[in-house]
Amino acid sequence: MKQFVAQDIATAMENASWIRRMFEAGAELRKQRGAENVFDFSLGNPDVPAPAKTRDVLHALAEDVVRPCGLGYMPNAGLQSFREALAKRLSVEQAVPLSAKHIIATVGAAGALVAFFRAVLEAGDEVLVPSPYFVEYGFYCGHFGGILKPVPMEGPAFALDAEKLLAQVTDKTRVILLNSPNNPTGAIYAEEDLNRLATAINELNATRERPIYILSDEPYRVFAFDGVTVPSILAMSPYAIVLGSFSKSLSLAGERVGYLAIHPALEGCDTLLAAVTMTNRTLGYVNAPILGQRLAEALVDEQVDLSIYDERRKAMAAILTEAGFNFAVPKGAFYFFPEVPGGDDIAFCQKLLQHGIIAVPGRGFGRPGYMRLCCAVPMEVIQRSAAAFKEACK
Amino acid sequence: MKQFVAQDIATAMENASWIRRMFEAGAELRKQRGAENVFDFSLGNPDVPAPAKTRDVLHALAEDVVRPCGLGYMPNAGLQSFREALAKRLSVEQAVPLSAKHIIATVGAAGALVAFFRAVLEAGDEVLVPSPYFVEYGFYCGHFGGILKPVPMEGPAFALDAEKLLAQVTDKTRVILLNSPNNPTGAIYAEEDLNRLATAINELNATRERPIYILSDEPYRVFAFDGVTVPSILAMSPYAIVLGSFSKSLSLAGERVGYLAIHPALEGCDTLLAAVTMTNRTLGYVNAPILGQRLAEALVDEQVDLSIYDERRKAMAAILTEAGFNFAVPKGAFYFFPEVPGGDDIAFCQKLLQHGIIAVPGRGFGRPGYMRLCCAVPMEVIQRSAAAFKEACK
Repeated sequence: MKQFVAQDIATAMENASWIRRMFEAGAELRKQRGAENVFDFSLGNPDVPAPAKTRDVLHALAEDVVRPCGLGYMPNAGLQSFREALAKRLSVEQAVPLSAKHIIATVGAAGALVAFFRAVLEAGDEVLVPSPYFVEYGFYCGHFGGILKPVPMEGPAFALDAEKLLAQVTDKTRVILLNSPNNPTGAIYAEEDLNRLATAINELNATRERPIYILSDEPYRVFAFDGVTVPSILAMSPYAIVLGSFSKSLSLAGERVGYLAIHPALEGCDTLLAAVTMTNRTLGYVNAPILGQRLAEALVDEQVDLSIYDERRKAMAAILTEAGFNFAVPKGAFYFFPEVPGGDDIAFCQKLLQHGIIAVPGRGFGRPGYMRLCCAVPMEVIQRSAAAFKEACK
Repeated sequence: MKQFVAQDIATAMENASWIRRMFEAGAELRKQRGAENVFDFSLGNPDVPAPAKTRDVLHALAEDVVRPCGLGYMPNAGLQSFREALAKRLSVEQAVPLSAKHIIATVGAAGALVAFFRAVLEAGDEVLVPSPYFVEYGFYCGHFGGILKPVPMEGPAFALDAEKLLAQVTDKTRVILLNSPNNPTGAIYAEEDLNRLATAINELNATRERPIYILSDEPYRVFAFDGVTVPSILAMSPYAIVLGSFSKSLSLAGERVGYLAIHPALEGCDTLLAAVTMTNRTLGYVNAPILGQRLAEALVDEQVDLSIYDERRKAMAAILTEAGFNFAVPKGAFYFFPEVPGGDDIAFCQKLLQHGIIAVPGRGFGRPGYMRLCCAVPMEVIQRSAAAFKEACK
């Protein structure tokens, strides 16, 4: 038997992700029931149209780019003008004065995560993450010998438990990875919990040769509802690194534009900036896509119509309550993460399939006994799913 | 002393690339002499404007994308329509019938290289490359424990010496990496030399558990002059993998659109396609940028005005001949790689700087005693540099 691929990749392919499996189950379901009778809550592809201004910006770009180097290479950290615009916005959002030099444009938030992990991890280093969590994180650090250590948080609200995280810190810990608003739970971490974590890490780092970074993955930052605001971890620690993207806020997921920002007061700020700029280059990203950067620059203060997401959230909350699920209404992002009746997430998701509903089992996020529902689907689909949820819970 | 970055990254940063150093020397030189008296042949940023049709395509895209998921995620291997268009073109270009499923859209050619290396390399695997070579290759495979082994080819023409490469094959060899038309030499490898290599690899692989791949990096494929055509290695071996980009052919370097194609007759074709699709996702690229893919799809049979590059090539050849350099006129790409008078490439490049000329020392490509000149600069710069080259050679 010839080995066409690396052993660890062959193994990983056998364990195809649950999101992917549900995606395939969905295709089958559509054939059987017809697309209009399938309620697909599996994939997080933002479906609200990009802001109308996107059209004008693209027309303007069309007139601008057919000139020497109009679509050419740029500094590996990104377009200066884009980084300046972003610095201005992030300085307000994060309550830390940032300039263009503290920001690196990346190929989405995922590209920022991978470039950062490559820059700081040695083989055997540990990355702590509150669980449930986005499973791709394991790949992102695993490429370079990093080991993801999920630390279970308490459901159904999945608030940040700083003590639980801190109890898992060892000499091997290099990164604590936070994601707020959270995928899959929709939780927004509270200021006091973040503060407890940041204070402890700041103290620990005073005597550590290899500091622990708090990596804050914030692609859902603008998706905060019920008047809740997302606190700035950057304002609490120079060891915090903030990253995000325009995939959700501008419905620009396919164009791959994200960023990473480093605190100006970090002692090794320049070294770390140079390192991530280099790994961003040598990992083959080279630079974030130029059309996406120019688009995001022009739309840096815009976002999609968030009221659409808020209405969906309220409708889904009502449906799940009516059906009898145990869950916390998410304050952020566009996911619900309810407990499943009976406790077996695979069995329940299969039951849901029989009613035309596609959900992802919680074990796909490191937490059996729950399931994830993504509300990046039209309101009409949510509303029509009500009866099916009720039936399945009987 | 705190360690803010990984050790190997810290070491790599100390050895900043020669291209980068010359870039910085150039900035200094411009301040001293004024930009108009600097002849910068260091960077390969394609400066010929993108095809005029780019404008129309972007206007059309502007009208199309502001709708649900118009700029959203897609299958990780890329847009089906783009891959179909590319399959049609590559089937002709490579003389092998390819369909969309054999092609993966990537974040530039660099993204294809990194995703491929991640999919096939185990730590300690060797990647053979004819030298001189593009130094970033070392990073691309080194991220995953691969070891780049440069095999010196003979100057000044740097034709492919298949025997020399084959003599370096060991049990550890996993990839032979070719780049034709070549950066930095401009060489186009001859059909008979490629055939000798492919035939030998096909034979070796018959009994190897872990086949050796011939990875053909072809971003300069359309840059072939004097009636020379670039042979298809894919037509010679099912173990050949072809990759390329639109960075140079459409002057689209900043948007990061490339591809990788696998031979349908490769026994492990499906496995390898699935593996690269997965590493393309888990390395954080997720998918090639959507605007770039749609642009490249609409322009799949177009290219920049190659006669501009050909005229520059002829002008530079005349200037270098007149100045007395020993070199082969490149048949492809847009680089010259002449021997330096005196044999010390650093000393000579420093001498050139005094005359306002920026070149990259050959050791930046693994070959001291030579230098690289990039002709992606206006004809007028090339012509005005003639006297400076002559002076420096005195």
